[in-house]
Amino acid sequence: MPPNPEPIRVADKFPLIPDYWSPRIIAQVNDTHVKAARLLGEFDWHHHTDEDELFWVIRGRLLIQFRDRDVWLEPGELLVVPRGVEHRPIAHEEVHLVLVEPATTLNTGNVVSERTVRDPEPI
Amino acid sequence: MPPNPEPIRVADKFPLIPDYWSPRIIAQVNDTHVKAARLLGEFDWHHHTDEDELFWVIRGRLLIQFRDRDVWLEPGELLVVPRGVEHRPIAHEEVHLVLVEPATTLNTGNVVSERTVRDPEPI
Repeated sequence: MPPNPEPIRVADKFPLIPDYWSPRIIAQVNDTHVKAARLLGEFDWHHHTDEDELFWVIRGRLLIQFRDRDVWLEPGELLVVPRGVEHRPIAHEEVHLVLVEPATTLNTGNVVSERTVRDPEPI
Repeated sequence: MPPNPEPIRVADKFPLIPDYWSPRIIAQVNDTHVKAARLLGEFDWHHHTDEDELFWVIRGRLLIQFRDRDVWLEPGELLVVPRGVEHRPIAHEEVHLVLVEPATTLNTGNVVSERTVRDPEPI
């Protein structure tokens, strides 16, 4: 950790992210990563076997599909998806999202695809 | 964890908190708590021996004093205070703050005072 921590303006991080569905680390707190991601379109159904995952929408409206229902997240709203629960994020418009999750979390969970990001880079 | 996670509107949590400097849990992600706190006035100098602590300002301007410098946080800005680093938050106006930290974190760190909250309640 840096000896002189600097403020991070969350909204300024999103324009630096080149790709959709590719979370970047903006801060680390102990074993937890705070990540920023730009979303557009439909992601894959997946779950995380061992990790809960927190979604916090900063901009846009995010649909999170569960097998039994849909949940819409507005800007300023957060949702914790418990471990083991299948979900699929869908962004009909561009969504700016903050994720809080263990450093071990893979973005595609139990499903490895071309969208899997193994070592998200800091930004 | 609830089988049907519900959205949490972060800004709506602050009016429910009766006291300043008394963080309340708004979400849990694995071993990490996401807390909301209302701040006004000067807090005590302290550090957290084993825990990094993330401050995310939602409303108001927060001054975080370190022994060698001052850092101002504006709404939408976050800062990670690394473990072991002495700091003192000061709010000249009411500040609405989100904290991300391990469930083990005591708000007053190494200093136990009448402001110490041993078991923050969910809200």
